[in-house]
Amino acid sequence: MAERQMHFVTLICAGPTNHHNGGWRHPEGDGHLVLDPARYEEIARISEAGLFDGLFLVDYQFIQGQSEGKPNLVARYGGQMVMLDPLQLLAAMARVTSHIGLAATLSTSFYHAYHIARAFASLDHISHGRAGWNIVTSGNPAEAANFGLDALDQRINRYDHADEVVEACMALWNTWEADALKLDKESGIFADPDKLRFVRYEGESVRATGGLTTPQPPQGHPVLMQAGSSERGREFAARWSEVIFTVQQDLAPMQEFYADMKRRVTGHGREPGHCAVLPALDVIVAETEEEAQQQANYVDSLASVDLGMQTLCDLTGEDLRALPADTIFADIAVEPERIVSVGLYENVCKVRKDGRALTLEEAARLYATTWMAPRVVGTPSQIADHMQEIFEADACDGFVIGTSSSPMGLRNFVELVVPELQERGLYRREYAGATFRENLRG
Amino acid sequence: MAERQMHFVTLICAGPTNHHNGGWRHPEGDGHLVLDPARYEEIARISEAGLFDGLFLVDYQFIQGQSEGKPNLVARYGGQMVMLDPLQLLAAMARVTSHIGLAATLSTSFYHAYHIARAFASLDHISHGRAGWNIVTSGNPAEAANFGLDALDQRINRYDHADEVVEACMALWNTWEADALKLDKESGIFADPDKLRFVRYEGESVRATGGLTTPQPPQGHPVLMQAGSSERGREFAARWSEVIFTVQQDLAPMQEFYADMKRRVTGHGREPGHCAVLPALDVIVAETEEEAQQQANYVDSLASVDLGMQTLCDLTGEDLRALPADTIFADIAVEPERIVSVGLYENVCKVRKDGRALTLEEAARLYATTWMAPRVVGTPSQIADHMQEIFEADACDGFVIGTSSSPMGLRNFVELVVPELQERGLYRREYAGATFRENLRG
Repeated sequence: MAERQMHFVTLICAGPTNHHNGGWRHPEGDGHLVLDPARYEEIARISEAGLFDGLFLVDYQFIQGQSEGKPNLVARYGGQMVMLDPLQLLAAMARVTSHIGLAATLSTSFYHAYHIARAFASLDHISHGRAGWNIVTSGNPAEAANFGLDALDQRINRYDHADEVVEACMALWNTWEADALKLDKESGIFADPDKLRFVRYEGESVRATGGLTTPQPPQGHPVLMQAGSSERGREFAARWSEVIFTVQQDLAPMQEFYADMKRRVTGHGREPGHCAVLPALDVIVAETEEEAQQQANYVDSLASVDLGMQTLCDLTGEDLRALPADTIFADIAVEPERIVSVGLYENVCKVRKDGRALTLEEAARLYATTWMAPRVVGTPSQIADHMQEIFEADACDGFVIGTSSSPMGLRNFVELVVPELQERGLYRREYAGATFRENLRG
Repeated sequence: MAERQMHFVTLICAGPTNHHNGGWRHPEGDGHLVLDPARYEEIARISEAGLFDGLFLVDYQFIQGQSEGKPNLVARYGGQMVMLDPLQLLAAMARVTSHIGLAATLSTSFYHAYHIARAFASLDHISHGRAGWNIVTSGNPAEAANFGLDALDQRINRYDHADEVVEACMALWNTWEADALKLDKESGIFADPDKLRFVRYEGESVRATGGLTTPQPPQGHPVLMQAGSSERGREFAARWSEVIFTVQQDLAPMQEFYADMKRRVTGHGREPGHCAVLPALDVIVAETEEEAQQQANYVDSLASVDLGMQTLCDLTGEDLRALPADTIFADIAVEPERIVSVGLYENVCKVRKDGRALTLEEAARLYATTWMAPRVVGTPSQIADHMQEIFEADACDGFVIGTSSSPMGLRNFVELVVPELQERGLYRREYAGATFRENLRG
C-alpha cells in the first residue's frame, strides 16, 4: 500500500443540476426525485460504499438569473438551484450512514456565528463526529435581496468578517469543555458547571456573549472547508481550511496552487497534511472506452445549451446572446466588477479546445455539461491513470467527484474506479477512523 | 363515534428536562441519550403509535440563568436546555414516521423570513406535508447577547415585526405555484417559469426581494402554531395560528381563553375549527392509582428543588434565596419589567394548594417537577375523566401532552389512556389524513 492515498468528496446540489444540466433528464436517473430525501440518502450510501471521506452540499439562497418579469431559464430547464435545506438533508443522511463525512455550505454573510456554531455542533452530535462546514462569504446582490438587503456591506471586507465569524464559532464550540457532561443519574449531576465557559467574543463586526447550549461537538469543531482562490481567499483557507476545493483546468496551475496552499498552511503553523487540496473532477466511466463515450454523448444530448448561455450571461453580468456564436469568449469585453465569480470566469477563459480558446457557443455547451469542472471519460484504467498522474505530480490530495448522471455516475465510479485505485495502492480499503477528520488525516 | 375528537401534540425539549427536572435521572429512562438522535426518533414513533396530531420541539438559544463567574445550576442539575437544532432532529424524525406532524419553534426576532420560509418549506417536503412552525418572538436579553445584540430593538413591537415576518414567509412560500414543477424528462421542461412569482415584500421592518428556491411546500405552508397570552399575542394568534398552546391552571380561565380565542379567530374571518386550542397537561398514568402515585413520588424524589428555586429567580429577575421558605410567592414584590415570562409568572401566582397560594418552597418544588403545567396522576379512567371534563366543557380541543419521565411516561399514556379515550369515542382510531393540517382538521 502506498503511503499517501487519495481522498474523495462527493459534490451534491439539492436540486436538478450539480454540474450537468441535462443529467436530471436521464430516464434511469433520480432527477424526478429532487425533493425526496431518499434520493440524497442513496447518494450518501453509495459514497460511503466507495469509502469517500465525505460529501458536501452546495448552498446559495437565490435562483440564478431571476428577475422581475423575465422568464426564468434556470427553472424552466432545471439548472443549478438549491431546493432543500442542506443541514436537514445531512441530518437524514447521518441516520443511514456511519462513516462518511457530512458537510454543507453556510454563509458567513447571512448567518450569525451563533446560528452557524449551533447548526454544525448539532450535526456533529447527530452524526457522531462527521460534520463539516464549507465556509463561504456571499457577494451576490440577488441573494442579499432575498435577505432584505439592498447590497452587502462593502465597508467590511467579507473575509475579515468571515475570520471573525469562525473565531466566534471556535469560542462557542468551546463553551462546554470536552468532559463537562457527567450524566450521572445517581448523584443528579448532569454537568460540571466549572467546565462551562462564559463566552465573550468581541470583534470588529461580530459579537457573541453567553455560550452555546450545545455541548462540545465530538470532533471539537466540524471539519472546515473552503474554496476561495483570490489572494485573500487563499490566506483565509490557509488559516482555517482542512479541505480546500478548487477548479483547475491544467496540471501546471494545479501544481502551483497546491504548492502555494501547502506553503501558506505551513506559514500558519499548521501541518500541511492537515489540509487536503481537492480539485473538482467530473467522471464518466464504463467498462469500455466506447461505452463511456456513448454515455457521455447521450447525457450531453440532454443538456440545454440555452441554459448554458444564460449561465454565462449571469456569470458575466452581460447579455451575450446578441453576439455571434463563434466569438471567442475570452475576447469579449466584460466589466470586471459585474463578474459574479472571478474564479469561474477565468476558468471559462482558460479552457483550450484544439489549442485555441473557446467560442461563445462552445463555452455555453461546456458550461451546460460540466459547470467548468474538468471532465474525464473512459475506462476504469484510463480514469485511474488520469487521477494518478495528477496525484503523483503533487497537484492534489484527491478529488471532489462530480458525475453527469445521478446516481448511476457515482455508482459506476464506486464500482469501477475505486477498485482500480485500490489495486494500485492509491486508495484505502477501509475507513481509517470514526470521524470525518480522522479519515481525512488517515 | 363522537363528532368532536381530541387532538394531541407531544412536547419535547432536546435536552435533559422537558417539564420535570428529575426525569432525566430515572434509571429506566433515556436521560443519558440527550445528544442521541435515536432518542428523539423513538419519541416520534411512540407519539405516532398514539395517533398524535403532532409533536413539537421547544427552542431558545441560551442557558437560563447563565452569567459570567456564576456556577450554572441549570447545567449542573440538568434543567431545561435546548442542546440540538430542532429542524435537524425533525428531519431525522420525518424519516422514521409517516403521519405525525413535526413542528419546531423558530424565532422571528433572530431569523430573517427567508431563512424561516426555507427551513419549513424544506421540512414540509422532507416529511411529505407534515411541517409545523411554532412562532415565537424573543425578548430575552441573554438570547439577544448570544446573537451579538445588546438588547432587542424596543422601537419595533415584536408582534408587529412577527406579523411582517409571517407575511413575508407567506409570499415566499408562494414563489412557486403548486403546479409549477413539471419534471418532464422527455421534453426537458423542469418547471413552468410562468408559474414562478417574483416576490417583492416590503414591510416596515422586514423586506424580501426575489423568491424562494424551494418549490411550494406540500401543505402550501406549514401549520402555524403560537403560544402568546397577552392581548397582542392573542390577536396575533387569532390571525395566524392553527394550533394555540396555553398553560392554564383552572377550568374557568381555560373556558374564558377558549371562547375568547374562538371569537377572535372568527373575527379574522377564519373557521374556529381551524384553530385548535391545546392547553398543557402533564400525565402520570398506571393501572392502579397507587402505582401511579408511587411513580409520581419516585420521580419527584429525583427533582432538584434548588434548580426549581433558581428557575424562579430567573423568571422574576430577583434573588429569592434570601427570603424565608414559607413566604407566599404571590406576595413577593417583583419588578414587572424584569419578569421574563408574564404568563409563567402569573401561573405560579395562581396555583392553589389547600385553598391558599403557594409558598416560595412549594413554588420551587412545583416548578422543578412540572414547569407549571397542570399535572394529573391516576388510572387510565381517572386521566380520561379529567381530560373529558375539560374537553366537554368547551375549554380545549385537546392537549399538549407532557410526561415526567421519558420515554416511559409517553408510552404509558399511549398504551393506557389512548385506548380508554377511543372507547369513549373521544379520540381517533386511525389518522384522518396524510398531512399535519388534514389531521388537525380531521
